[in-house]
Amino acid sequence: MVVVMQEGALDHQIQHVIDRLVAMGFNVHRSTGETHTVLGAVGVRTDFDPRDIELLDGVREVVRITQPYKLASRHFRPEGTVVEIGKGVRIGGQEVVVAAGPCAVESSDEQGLKFMRQAADKNGLYVVSEVMDPSQITLMLPYVDMLQVGARNMQNYHLLRALGETHKPVLLKRGMSATIEELLLSAEYIMSGGNYNVVLCERGIRTFETSTRNTLDIAAIPVIKKLSHLPIIADPSHGTGRRDKVAPMARASVAAGADGLLIEVHNDPEHALSDGAQSLFADQFAQLMNELRMIAPAVGRRIG
Amino acid sequence: MVVVMQEGALDHQIQHVIDRLVAMGFNVHRSTGETHTVLGAVGVRTDFDPRDIELLDGVREVVRITQPYKLASRHFRPEGTVVEIGKGVRIGGQEVVVAAGPCAVESSDEQGLKFMRQAADKNGLYVVSEVMDPSQITLMLPYVDMLQVGARNMQNYHLLRALGETHKPVLLKRGMSATIEELLLSAEYIMSGGNYNVVLCERGIRTFETSTRNTLDIAAIPVIKKLSHLPIIADPSHGTGRRDKVAPMARASVAAGADGLLIEVHNDPEHALSDGAQSLFADQFAQLMNELRMIAPAVGRRIG
Amino acid sequence: MVVVMQEGALDHQIQHVIDRLVAMGFNVHRSTGETHTVLGAVGVRTDFDPRDIELLDGVREVVRITQPYKLASRHFRPEGTVVEIGKGVRIGGQEVVVAAGPCAVESSDEQGLKFMRQAADKNGLYVVSEVMDPSQITLMLPYVDMLQVGARNMQNYHLLRALGETHKPVLLKRGMSATIEELLLSAEYIMSGGNYNVVLCERGIRTFETSTRNTLDIAAIPVIKKLSHLPIIADPSHGTGRRDKVAPMARASVAAGADGLLIEVHNDPEHALSDGAQSLFADQFAQLMNELRMIAPAVGRRIG
Amino acid sequence: MVVVMQEGALDHQIQHVIDRLVAMGFNVHRSTGETHTVLGAVGVRTDFDPRDIELLDGVREVVRITQPYKLASRHFRPEGTVVEIGKGVRIGGQEVVVAAGPCAVESSDEQGLKFMRQAADKNGLYVVSEVMDPSQITLMLPYVDMLQVGARNMQNYHLLRALGETHKPVLLKRGMSATIEELLLSAEYIMSGGNYNVVLCERGIRTFETSTRNTLDIAAIPVIKKLSHLPIIADPSHGTGRRDKVAPMARASVAAGADGLLIEVHNDPEHALSDGAQSLFADQFAQLMNELRMIAPAVGRRIG
Repeated sequence: MVVVMQEGALDHQIQHVIDRLVAMGFNVHRSTGETHTVLGAVGVRTDFDPRDIELLDGVREVVRITQPYKLASRHFRPEGTVVEIGKGVRIGGQEVVVAAGPCAVESSDEQGLKFMRQAADKNGLYVVSEVMDPSQITLMLPYVDMLQVGARNMQNYHLLRALGETHKPVLLKRGMSATIEELLLSAEYIMSGGNYNVVLCERGIRTFETSTRNTLDIAAIPVIKKLSHLPIIADPSHGTGRRDKVAPMARASVAAGADGLLIEVHNDPEHALSDGAQSLFADQFAQLMNELRMIAPAVGRRIG
Repeated sequence: MVVVMQEGALDHQIQHVIDRLVAMGFNVHRSTGETHTVLGAVGVRTDFDPRDIELLDGVREVVRITQPYKLASRHFRPEGTVVEIGKGVRIGGQEVVVAAGPCAVESSDEQGLKFMRQAADKNGLYVVSEVMDPSQITLMLPYVDMLQVGARNMQNYHLLRALGETHKPVLLKRGMSATIEELLLSAEYIMSGGNYNVVLCERGIRTFETSTRNTLDIAAIPVIKKLSHLPIIADPSHGTGRRDKVAPMARASVAAGADGLLIEVHNDPEHALSDGAQSLFADQFAQLMNELRMIAPAVGRRIG
Repeated sequence: MVVVMQEGALDHQIQHVIDRLVAMGFNVHRSTGETHTVLGAVGVRTDFDPRDIELLDGVREVVRITQPYKLASRHFRPEGTVVEIGKGVRIGGQEVVVAAGPCAVESSDEQGLKFMRQAADKNGLYVVSEVMDPSQITLMLPYVDMLQVGARNMQNYHLLRALGETHKPVLLKRGMSATIEELLLSAEYIMSGGNYNVVLCERGIRTFETSTRNTLDIAAIPVIKKLSHLPIIADPSHGTGRRDKVAPMARASVAAGADGLLIEVHNDPEHALSDGAQSLFADQFAQLMNELRMIAPAVGRRIG
Repeated sequence: MVVVMQEGALDHQIQHVIDRLVAMGFNVHRSTGETHTVLGAVGVRTDFDPRDIELLDGVREVVRITQPYKLASRHFRPEGTVVEIGKGVRIGGQEVVVAAGPCAVESSDEQGLKFMRQAADKNGLYVVSEVMDPSQITLMLPYVDMLQVGARNMQNYHLLRALGETHKPVLLKRGMSATIEELLLSAEYIMSGGNYNVVLCERGIRTFETSTRNTLDIAAIPVIKKLSHLPIIADPSHGTGRRDKVAPMARASVAAGADGLLIEVHNDPEHALSDGAQSLFADQFAQLMNELRMIAPAVGRRIG
């Protein structure tokens, strides 16, 4: 951590800051410049609120040096992580994985997971389903291949901790107002429990622009690729909220380097139980797949 | 315009609103529902501030029906507009146009435009340069093929009006905090002066995310394609501010349907006069062009 | 609902929209203007996704007329709601209520609530504590006077529904990226279960400005006062995240018409378990209370 | 400047960064920690793009230590600045100054300034008027007491430079998407030309919330008070865009410590030339003044 003192900070103010840092267990190195004094603080504390120092008299700014996540950082596994779903799908490898399907299971609620599992097994497919609460995990584990954490639960630490104790792959969606760093911190939280099978998902952030439901932050894909070893996929259906914008944003995501896509498709979107407006018709989806097959090689990939 | 009255609005409140609308020159149609009264107002006024009605007692909401732009709307020219630059480049046609070069002319200021013109003519290139002030237009016209309006000037109406009186193609950049509708309104402003040669440019908006300098709103590309007939290009250099993010976002833009790209390239970015950090090295640019050539056919285009 | 067709929409497109609306149970009124056709649709459906109509060919825009909340709207109870906490505190009345205390109970976790209850009873105070999960409600009910829904749970509908089934006052915090309308929709959700004792809380939204942790949206106070009958309080501690900004924003909130304040105070903020940096020292709090007592009469209130 | 290298950065990468910094004229201090190497760079360069270093291999982050503004910083004049308007008004002193009037001069355009000057002189008032272009300055100087830079021109450096060469007080409005730091940088730009008579103005930023035209960032007032010695006033009329929200936000601004207010008042707002919807009626303004007179003493001020 680096503490930058204000221009003209008084000696006793500087000394007070040093004392506080030492009391917190840091080793402090003082560097006195022409205009500013800068304190370097080295230590092991991670449960530390930088504002506690920032508010001391004479302090201008506190800069954390250590990245707040370790397990999720690219440095931890420079070659990148491949997450295996079931026995056949690998996310983060050379293939770009396209997950398609309806948003909700449209049948008897209690039996939904079971039916989904049976349908998947019969057709050689895999099941990803959203988990809302730690209490649902045990129930869901036998039926799903991947557990999804929705955008609203990205910082639900009870849920993240419980998922860290399983070995099931987790699809972690970025919160609508979460920074990329906060997304990686949530991934770190799951990983610190022992579950490294985390796939990140960009699904749009809230901005002042209202033409689309959210602003799909495509740049998050290359940014995350550099900062982290975890696979990153995109959800253009929720990211735009409108069927006619899904294909362009799906193509853009693959062109930007996404490891996969989450796309809502429905055999009859106009009568879908939910979010029909953002579901592709089957023939639109088929055409999109053709386009993606042409784009993937430009980034050294192929469509899975 | 539709005026929605509050639930329980009183009769004399409704009558006052009707009177005001009539006094403003609107024809009013009253529709009384079970819970709400809704007033439809038809008229020719365009210089109208809907808040004047919204603030009247008993009014809940005023909804404008007429799109605030006409010349820039897709309906005005459903087949789309192709803007010709010089004698050879067509933006908005089947070819995706890639404009590359340094951000600033790095030589004697006064002679800069002249040198640029000469260099362009010698090499069969075209010149686009930013205009900051109406007084510069006459000076610049002989030397440039296209006049660029920077993001900060997107709503500088003095400048837009002056550009409307020329026939020179205009590259209109989206302001950092401008909605898509506001961008189209600025285009309308230029077009209403008689100059229809307007090319729009998405270059990133300001959001809470700070990993990139701005958030390049790629979805703006298909949104604008639907709303307007004007060509839309993307500027991934300013949109990301970092060289290593330019190529992914350039590819994403083309995959999303952009009519062109504005890319900063420099033979020695580390010593560039400005914005070297977002300029590609020549070999990076060459590789990007190869990638774009593979992507363009997926959207029925080719690279120009 | 009003459906605005595009300029030049074709007759069969208009007819298709009408047919869809009728099939959905709406009565449709068609109004044909010089440039636009506008359809008014009246019906009882509330579980309706306007995008389903918006995406039909020829449609430009769909405008919902009915406010999406009823119980929470000012019209439902024009005189305003007063929520009683315990037997002595009334939020929404003439007194501005200031709730002060530490953010976390700093003692044995399991016994925390019990101790808090005992301490409150002994000193004639009241207890408000955050509920994270429906399963905690039964446990907490005997010990607390008010249940708080944190910003991250504002749209946790499981939790909201469970709270609607109690009669305990609920303090509902605005989510960091939630609009005012979304906050009122969450209140509606609780109220539709039968629990009308809801107090809203503005605690800052996420914007591009990073000088403060969040941007406390003070204007939300008068906006909510007009739209809803529910009391609205402000949380300047979380809204700014810094002790030295708490007092100015607390004063501003009262001056803008807030019904109360939530302020973190700690006898030793520098050693607080959490959020010490945003906790006032006891003497700062005393001074703030003096200032608030001078401001309240300017808005016809007094400090409780 | 502090350069934080990535965990595991290679020696030759570190050496390359050091070489680049030295070539740029910096003195470099290397500090090797257990996990990170940190480079401290001291030097005089201010025209420096930190991204140039950030993009070098092995670099994780570049942190600027020196505040990018000096003349505008609180340290430059710890006691605060008072800007005198004409011979009687002092902004930044003990009095809170309320500037009220119509937004536009509603009479013959060319003679507007002259009439405004005459009316002001006759009534002992002062004139503040917006300047859009450097060419207008000379013309305006004899007639106005203060030149206003509108939000859209906050970063129009041509204009700022020209204003720096006058001695006329400048009212600098914060841009709709400008950070507080950027506002202070613009003030610095004017001051570096020799004109220290700068008054800052908060007038709302663009966020996702649309209930008000902009989100008036009241916290900017105490933040600027700490960072800078310049007076800061608020514009609740443009900040909210609606008459019924002006008074609450005006009160909130004074309670938060604003040095003044800019309020639109009109004798007939419903027929105002522009922005009538955000103009107070005369009696509303009189009532607001009474309220402000009660609030000001709470912050040790009085209304001027």
